[in-house]
Amino acid sequence: MTAPDFSKGCAWQRGEYVPIGQASVPLTDWGFLRSDATYDVVTVWEGAFFRLDAHMERFLRSCQRFRLDPGRSPQAIVEILSECVRRAGLRASYVEMVVTRGQPPWGSRDPRQAVNQFYAFAVPYVWIANEEQRRRGLHVAVSDVQRIPPASVDPKAKNYHWNDLTMGLLGALDAGADTVLLSDAAGNVVEGPGFNIFAVRAGRLVTPAEGVLEGVTRRTVIEMAATLSLPVEERALPAAELRMADEAFLSTSGGGVLPVTRVDGQVIGSGVPGPITQRLVDTYWAWHQDPRYSTPIVY
Amino acid sequence: MTAPDFSKGCAWQRGEYVPIGQASVPLTDWGFLRSDATYDVVTVWEGAFFRLDAHMERFLRSCQRFRLDPGRSPQAIVEILSECVRRAGLRASYVEMVVTRGQPPWGSRDPRQAVNQFYAFAVPYVWIANEEQRRRGLHVAVSDVQRIPPASVDPKAKNYHWNDLTMGLLGALDAGADTVLLSDAAGNVVEGPGFNIFAVRAGRLVTPAEGVLEGVTRRTVIEMAATLSLPVEERALPAAELRMADEAFLSTSGGGVLPVTRVDGQVIGSGVPGPITQRLVDTYWAWHQDPRYSTPIVY
Repeated sequence: MTAPDFSKGCAWQRGEYVPIGQASVPLTDWGFLRSDATYDVVTVWEGAFFRLDAHMERFLRSCQRFRLDPGRSPQAIVEILSECVRRAGLRASYVEMVVTRGQPPWGSRDPRQAVNQFYAFAVPYVWIANEEQRRRGLHVAVSDVQRIPPASVDPKAKNYHWNDLTMGLLGALDAGADTVLLSDAAGNVVEGPGFNIFAVRAGRLVTPAEGVLEGVTRRTVIEMAATLSLPVEERALPAAELRMADEAFLSTSGGGVLPVTRVDGQVIGSGVPGPITQRLVDTYWAWHQDPRYSTPIVY
Repeated sequence: MTAPDFSKGCAWQRGEYVPIGQASVPLTDWGFLRSDATYDVVTVWEGAFFRLDAHMERFLRSCQRFRLDPGRSPQAIVEILSECVRRAGLRASYVEMVVTRGQPPWGSRDPRQAVNQFYAFAVPYVWIANEEQRRRGLHVAVSDVQRIPPASVDPKAKNYHWNDLTMGLLGALDAGADTVLLSDAAGNVVEGPGFNIFAVRAGRLVTPAEGVLEGVTRRTVIEMAATLSLPVEERALPAAELRMADEAFLSTSGGGVLPVTRVDGQVIGSGVPGPITQRLVDTYWAWHQDPRYSTPIVY
């Protein structure tokens, strides 16, 4: 037996740490067969979790909403997440925690009889936009695929129901865009695969309020805006209004604040990442040094 | 090494047959992390597949709609399904075929770059209703959770986006019902976890047309109705109309035609499985002997 190779990432499953490539979910777990699961993602930057408390709170809230039980205390979860990062030897990491339904006893279709299962993994930091895209700004297409509405699936509990996002993304990539924004039935943009959206107009930020994940980075942008004296409106954002914005950006744990410079091929503002976006990018990374938001890992 | 124990079922994954309890999906497969997958279920009864062609056609159509590639011919798929049933030694089986997205190369978020993965498994026949429920008829609750609408996820391509069904089912079970029916935004009932719904009124069948899976058993009911000279209306079915029905039943690969005798606690018709439902149950099982619909497995 050679020592396990955690260099591509480390996962925790069924009581042990395994290399990410060996991690798996039973085929018969309802987490797979019914996408009956919830999750959260927290990042590690320069050896410290960013806004760990906010992610843990949301994860536990998501579990409650879907009646899923992680089966361990928040402290025990954080210890598993930390150990995944340690074993993978990562200073910058994308760390995911998951609870699946498990499966009821054979013959039962009662989710209440299933033993829920906890998983976690740490892999190298994930950027939703690559370096060139971050420099020039993203080209986003607005899809006519509608985001799954809150009356069907609670968007405030993080879930893997991404077929709408994936089909929209395929259409956007085919059309030459970098990523996609889905709309609601009224034609307002709502969110994309792994991010919230902000428009900037006359010095004010606008971000959708309904039918979206309550992103921790979205919240961070709103808090940063307050310290920078930028007014924020949380309300419906029609696609037409986004196209007329001075600036636009995505907020995501996969890279923070990411400039958008084209929507459906149309240039936004001056066609380069705008000054307010840049201030928020700078503030986002500066806050990673702030002990209020930063939880160092002991390696 | 002892011989593998296939008595609980047999799965095919990554080129080999394994006992169902050992079958798994990589944690990082988008089939899990984004529920980016499609599937179909065909049953085996008395050693023969029932309506294998119809299930294969739908499966391949689902793959196309979601741009997923099973990576093998229909004949090769049928051979894998047959071998799963053979190894499990089952004369009555629930057989599932699955394609997952797989995962794009590290750092890419482009689904087109992923290598899709094929899975299959055969387990003992699954009944959505147990013997007592089939005798007395099911008690169904109509949920206020709305089924994910077609504008978000194409219901005609079979998918694992079941959070709405699962949350609705939890509410129904808590309320003492046996299972759940979801509605659309207009208050029409659409479908439940693994089944379509039919109401019978004055000798006519009514079943929802929009926002539902095109169930093979649903189609079988419509074809049986034609041979029994029962008119069928495929149209919106308001919950109020279902409650006033003479008879009601579910159609599903998990047991065929299953009588419903209560909706939201209210008795349907005479409160026992109705005569038209019973004729359809009998015809359903009789058709399993018909060589037009039956494909024997060579064990």
